[in-house]
Amino acid sequence: MSEPSIFPPYPHRHLLGIQNLSPVDLNLLLDRADAAVALSRQPEKKTSTLRGRTQINLFYEASTRTQSSFELAGKRLGADVMNMSVASSSVKKGETLIDTAMTLNAMRPDILIIRHAMAGAAALLAQKVGCSVVNAGDGAHEHPTQALLDALTIRRAKGDLSRLTIAICGDVLHSRVARSNILLLNTLGARVRVIAPSTLLPTGIHEMSVEVFNRMEEGLRGVDVVMMLRLQRERMAGAFVPSVREYFHLFGLDTRKLALAKEGALVMHPGPMNRGVEIASEIADGPQSVIQEQVEMGVAVRMAVMEALLDPRKSGGRA
Amino acid sequence: MSEPSIFPPYPHRHLLGIQNLSPVDLNLLLDRADAAVALSRQPEKKTSTLRGRTQINLFYEASTRTQSSFELAGKRLGADVMNMSVASSSVKKGETLIDTAMTLNAMRPDILIIRHAMAGAAALLAQKVGCSVVNAGDGAHEHPTQALLDALTIRRAKGDLSRLTIAICGDVLHSRVARSNILLLNTLGARVRVIAPSTLLPTGIHEMSVEVFNRMEEGLRGVDVVMMLRLQRERMAGAFVPSVREYFHLFGLDTRKLALAKEGALVMHPGPMNRGVEIASEIADGPQSVIQEQVEMGVAVRMAVMEALLDPRKSGGRA
Amino acid sequence: MSEPSIFPPYPHRHLLGIQNLSPVDLNLLLDRADAAVALSRQPEKKTSTLRGRTQINLFYEASTRTQSSFELAGKRLGADVMNMSVASSSVKKGETLIDTAMTLNAMRPDILIIRHAMAGAAALLAQKVGCSVVNAGDGAHEHPTQALLDALTIRRAKGDLSRLTIAICGDVLHSRVARSNILLLNTLGARVRVIAPSTLLPTGIHEMSVEVFNRMEEGLRGVDVVMMLRLQRERMAGAFVPSVREYFHLFGLDTRKLALAKEGALVMHPGPMNRGVEIASEIADGPQSVIQEQVEMGVAVRMAVMEALLDPRKSGGRA
Repeated sequence: MSEPSIFPPYPHRHLLGIQNLSPVDLNLLLDRADAAVALSRQPEKKTSTLRGRTQINLFYEASTRTQSSFELAGKRLGADVMNMSVASSSVKKGETLIDTAMTLNAMRPDILIIRHAMAGAAALLAQKVGCSVVNAGDGAHEHPTQALLDALTIRRAKGDLSRLTIAICGDVLHSRVARSNILLLNTLGARVRVIAPSTLLPTGIHEMSVEVFNRMEEGLRGVDVVMMLRLQRERMAGAFVPSVREYFHLFGLDTRKLALAKEGALVMHPGPMNRGVEIASEIADGPQSVIQEQVEMGVAVRMAVMEALLDPRKSGGRA
Repeated sequence: MSEPSIFPPYPHRHLLGIQNLSPVDLNLLLDRADAAVALSRQPEKKTSTLRGRTQINLFYEASTRTQSSFELAGKRLGADVMNMSVASSSVKKGETLIDTAMTLNAMRPDILIIRHAMAGAAALLAQKVGCSVVNAGDGAHEHPTQALLDALTIRRAKGDLSRLTIAICGDVLHSRVARSNILLLNTLGARVRVIAPSTLLPTGIHEMSVEVFNRMEEGLRGVDVVMMLRLQRERMAGAFVPSVREYFHLFGLDTRKLALAKEGALVMHPGPMNRGVEIASEIADGPQSVIQEQVEMGVAVRMAVMEALLDPRKSGGRA
Repeated sequence: MSEPSIFPPYPHRHLLGIQNLSPVDLNLLLDRADAAVALSRQPEKKTSTLRGRTQINLFYEASTRTQSSFELAGKRLGADVMNMSVASSSVKKGETLIDTAMTLNAMRPDILIIRHAMAGAAALLAQKVGCSVVNAGDGAHEHPTQALLDALTIRRAKGDLSRLTIAICGDVLHSRVARSNILLLNTLGARVRVIAPSTLLPTGIHEMSVEVFNRMEEGLRGVDVVMMLRLQRERMAGAFVPSVREYFHLFGLDTRKLALAKEGALVMHPGPMNRGVEIASEIADGPQSVIQEQVEMGVAVRMAVMEALLDPRKSGGRA
């Protein structure tokens, strides 16, 4: 470790979810991420803080965007990065998740990035392996780095989150992004609204600290940020599958609906977008959209998380 | 950038095609590539001129050879290289080319290498993204680094191209390689012949500065270089598909036909070869073949191109 | 090469099999591997001994474990590593093995790691290419780095192999692992037993220096090490395919059978395991199992092999 960190030590070993993170934890990560943004805008966008460290990306669900983001983050920190994309076919004939993880663990990685269709997969691995674990999405449970990048994007554009009202709109039922965002935004003191048809709301949404709306026309009034969610029709086997046209009419973000939000409200989307389904193209590409900036913040947030987890001042580490 | 370039600055930001490149531009790239050849023949075949730069290879068509060549080129320059092989299936359900490119662009790459089935794809991206773009093959349009590596191979073996006659033989219709080569060879003053059955010639070939022949026995007489093309039967859906046997008899390069060329004429092929279709094995592996050397020159040319495009003395760059 | 090796020069250029290696060769590799284990247990698990060297992993059969192990080994040595996973489909329409290898060879790699379904593939390539070749498994022939990692695991736990009796159990017929292990263990002076149903023994097993048993109850008595093999039902097309239940009853390693071995005998498996087929889960995860340690030793052995083959004090190298 050639460059000692200017940040206070981060107290956790894993990033499994937003739950259990304090406002101090979250702000520490966002501050580190701000520094990583500055680095990534240099021509030589590289440090050696994780030189000689081994990062393994273990993705059981394809995700061009998230996997790329973690890969670039690790490389910019100087780590050796190895990708393991496990197609569903090889899962069937192959090892269990635990056996695969234990095998990789034996190769002495310093950090394991895991995406899996099963809620709790990351926490399960964290109990088994000797390295740090980052949850890159586990079923409908959590996707903490997505929530962090969203928070960073908002904070850089609008400042202190505790003064803001944020609407999360659309397919909340299938969205780990929504869940992690609700937790994070609540922790940082934002007011959170959820706008969705009742068929796309999880049972238990009313126990979370959110205001629930079933109509965009009501929920969007006066909000500072509009977060659209991807309509995950691929997860709606057999059940209610809305017609695209009707869905767009009722829940798609267009100029008319966006006009109800506060002037200059941010428009966000975790990607990949279904243009013309949950969002109109002119909004996605319009002046209020920060969708590209979210992607940039994604690399920075992942750099911050990995650097914080592997901070050499942390006691312990593997034997 | 630890090692300042000994070459004059290269005036372009992208490499989209051979068209619009001057003889000075081309020779500058070939001179740089000569230096890269020397480097790659060292045990420690690595510089740090692109240290901390991010290179993304975005390949919509599988290409073991070209993608590997760009990957090694980037790594030998010290860049961080990320591969994105986009299978056709995920294209269907996924984002548009532009959305994918804009997402990658937001991750702040310095250079994007793109291969796509659509002519003009690279030029389209160059208008959208904030980084340098290299066309690694766009439909039947251009494949400029292939033409450059062919020119480098010829120049190293035969010297000044302006004194040479070069025959390009076979499936010209489906070949971006042929197109880029014709443009480059004309720019450097070589005499270019095209030899193909009329069914495998593009309309408009007679407007290019080439002599057209329909018989190998006529076109090969006295040439310095014989460039064979891959017969791309996979692109001949429904249309005229020649029988392999007849094609080899008429247009395959064998000992008898090669004897018509100048003594010591070079034999070239962009690979992968259909042995026994467009070229006989004894020619492919024979003393006049420089097919392996073309591959070696490929890595060198790609190093030269990327280094020239990212030369730090270039004004501008992204905000 | 910034760090001169403390080891005596290794006399070979390729690692194609265990056959032809002397006890001195083997111990030299195991000694180097011990040093690599120590390195991989550091936070900064990286040297620059292969900085600027190019390693290509050419895998014609999928192998998460072995390919990952070679990839991490190369990266920890500072090499530039490129993966080429050749799916069977692209082999069909594509080049021959030799053409692909010659193309890669022209890109000036320093070392080529090859896995292929054909026995002799690695030796064939070694005759053609200008770089070092490592056999990562060729058909049912050899898998030398697996045998080396097994030997390293045993040596670290039990010391000098010449005092030990080792039982190799199960599907010997389809196992290149068994073959390489028999050769290596014999060379280092261990007593080797093979335990398998006669239908899973290769013809010619009786010409090797092994004791053959058909019953676990007899073969396991008093052994120091029990090596289980993966039952490769996928290679048993049409022929005798044992029922899993009967196989486990007769040849699966369970508590009752393991009790026949010497107290504290090691349990090994090359992975991936079929739990409940050739090994009971409580044994695989039990106190005598060194299956995870085998994986760790795998990275170390591959570092040792590559470093030894590319030792700069070696005369020659490519022209």
